[in-house]
Amino acid sequence: MDNIKGILAPKGFKALGEHIGIKKTKKDLSIVYSEQPATFAGVFTTNKVKAAPVLWDMNINDTKDTVSAIITTSGNANACTGEQGKIDNNTIATKLSEKLNLTPEEILVCATGVIGLPLPMDKIINGIDRSVHLLDRSEASSGAAAEAIMTTDTFTKTIDYAFKIKDKTIKIGGMAKGSGMIHPNMATMLSFITTDCNISKDMLQKAISKSTTDTYNMISVDGDTSTNDTLLILANGMACNDVIAEENEDYEEFCKALDFVNKDLAIKIVKDGEGATKLMEVTVQGSKTVDDGKKIVKSVISSSLFKSALFGADANWGRVLCAMGYSDGNFDVDNVKIVFKSFDENDISQEIILMENSKPIPFDEDVAKEVLSSKVIYIYIILDEGNYSATGWGCDLTYDYVKINGDYRS
Amino acid sequence: MDNIKGILAPKGFKALGEHIGIKKTKKDLSIVYSEQPATFAGVFTTNKVKAAPVLWDMNINDTKDTVSAIITTSGNANACTGEQGKIDNNTIATKLSEKLNLTPEEILVCATGVIGLPLPMDKIINGIDRSVHLLDRSEASSGAAAEAIMTTDTFTKTIDYAFKIKDKTIKIGGMAKGSGMIHPNMATMLSFITTDCNISKDMLQKAISKSTTDTYNMISVDGDTSTNDTLLILANGMACNDVIAEENEDYEEFCKALDFVNKDLAIKIVKDGEGATKLMEVTVQGSKTVDDGKKIVKSVISSSLFKSALFGADANWGRVLCAMGYSDGNFDVDNVKIVFKSFDENDISQEIILMENSKPIPFDEDVAKEVLSSKVIYIYIILDEGNYSATGWGCDLTYDYVKINGDYRS
Repeated sequence: MDNIKGILAPKGFKALGEHIGIKKTKKDLSIVYSEQPATFAGVFTTNKVKAAPVLWDMNINDTKDTVSAIITTSGNANACTGEQGKIDNNTIATKLSEKLNLTPEEILVCATGVIGLPLPMDKIINGIDRSVHLLDRSEASSGAAAEAIMTTDTFTKTIDYAFKIKDKTIKIGGMAKGSGMIHPNMATMLSFITTDCNISKDMLQKAISKSTTDTYNMISVDGDTSTNDTLLILANGMACNDVIAEENEDYEEFCKALDFVNKDLAIKIVKDGEGATKLMEVTVQGSKTVDDGKKIVKSVISSSLFKSALFGADANWGRVLCAMGYSDGNFDVDNVKIVFKSFDENDISQEIILMENSKPIPFDEDVAKEVLSSKVIYIYIILDEGNYSATGWGCDLTYDYVKINGDYRS
Repeated sequence: MDNIKGILAPKGFKALGEHIGIKKTKKDLSIVYSEQPATFAGVFTTNKVKAAPVLWDMNINDTKDTVSAIITTSGNANACTGEQGKIDNNTIATKLSEKLNLTPEEILVCATGVIGLPLPMDKIINGIDRSVHLLDRSEASSGAAAEAIMTTDTFTKTIDYAFKIKDKTIKIGGMAKGSGMIHPNMATMLSFITTDCNISKDMLQKAISKSTTDTYNMISVDGDTSTNDTLLILANGMACNDVIAEENEDYEEFCKALDFVNKDLAIKIVKDGEGATKLMEVTVQGSKTVDDGKKIVKSVISSSLFKSALFGADANWGRVLCAMGYSDGNFDVDNVKIVFKSFDENDISQEIILMENSKPIPFDEDVAKEVLSSKVIYIYIILDEGNYSATGWGCDLTYDYVKINGDYRS
């Protein structure tokens, strides 16, 4: 993790991650700053109950093309805090804008943590006051900034990626948080992407929205969707490529790179699923439409019964078929093949075929136990009806999930 | 439980529950028999993957008005067993019909248990052979029949109820099984209702379908829907009331009684939710439509995060509001009141108001702990937008749920 520059890989970005007292001892203030005004785009929670900072950011997304900074406080989500929550959010944006010689509308605000409690504004205002100068010596602060947005996460989630558009090197960096309440259609997660790519607002929004459907929207930890989910991308253009303003080859290259970054972060979020010990990658092959494939994948990765079976290393194809059956995805119920696969420490694959033509196939229980005891289990659902496929990621349901979520407030 | 006559309360029904060797030691064959051909109706799983007995029963439901018996084997669900499963199912119906001097199409068949394994037909045929005569001395067999349909259930679920239509006493009895894989839209459950009411097939189907939407479809244990769910009702007319053939007053009385029976069984299923230690009854009041209320209720009773909080006795109104927010039910997000309530051993109620106008209200943590440590917790979500209400039932998510489902096959 230490060699990853993350959000600081692209040119012209600064960051900090500090402890300012919202949490007892852990870092709780994160700022990302772009030296040049950055074109930006966002994807926000679909929950009807939206936190004050989400409403703030959505409004800016609707009315402005560029911003210069993202400030995130962790430990308190500023959700269900009524009018005061909105006033506090405004105060935070105003305070930071003053320190950075910007207008409040050039600041995006995020928050994550417990909901329904007023923000500790004294601590936040003081924290901003004494932290902002650290942006100037932030070269090594990528990890700190990623740490400061965590709540129940057990590790920081960062990634960066470089690619070429003509003779220009473009970089994309990202950091994310999220471990509980993760589910298709944006989950309790924050994900911030930086890039020095030169791209128009329209194309940036199109690229990030499309990428979301194949990455963050294809993961599930527990099926809950939060009030604060936010994905933001800032593109400051400092790579000096010709501006991407239409769906040309450059755009395709950018989308590919963006997918790589988002998929990496999405999988890291699932790996860190609350209490999770195993990752499952579920792929439907040969569905009639992409949509059918996605619906089947989502149903399997979300099934509490199958997630429990995974924890217990139980090769329970029946629960896979059952979850497929109650999904909204269409498939021929008499022609399903199911394969479980894993890789050992030498990258040698082992697999078991559990079902063919929708009938169970006898398999070696010892091999099954081995496959299912791996940290990453690949589940292939093979249909023979079309040329489409879909992939999603989930985790097992464990004692620790129940423990973590049985007593979160205390 | 011992004084409940259950399915044997109405006139003219016989039953047995025996051990025939599908399971190691527990009862695994259940037969319900009506002396007179009984008008019947059914509601079946919505899962696309349907077990052989479900397909058998659905076909009979589409083509016949009366049947005489229901036979259930437990321990093996005869699901995902291909053509052989259908042949085996036919053999069971044929065998029992011969013993009872009926045609196979007068026998409804159910099965529950592991899926994908062939039925142990020798044991089942022998079991039927040596058990059927026990129907003739079945007066006390209501409990045994209810026991023989169980799988991971920890207690039998039976109920009966009597009411009057004019001068005739009508009785309705019921038994059910189900503890895992329970979810709105018919879950892994079997529920068999007997009545001596005289009612037409059309009216019986209408009554049972409607009752299902307010009872079995308003419970959730873990969000999975099985391949075998079946609700059957047999009405043999032996109470000799004027036949109910239209939606008149008699029909309304019958529906009320049927709701009482189904609601009782549905709640017992949730109480026996795998690993569950607490029951929640969630009521939405004042929604704009019934549908909005139901959608909100279902989202709350299905939230893994809130179910975990319930287990941890955590008065987490935030997770209630959050689950409301990602439901498809419409409500004013700024005007929600949430109340938790319970009754102590002397039936004295205690309650805490957690939220008003969508803002958290300070509450006594000690009272909250007490309310949330009760066996039954009533959750009221009070909107102020219309005159409709909806109620549903769920349970907590516990370590034991994960344990039971992590290792079911072994």
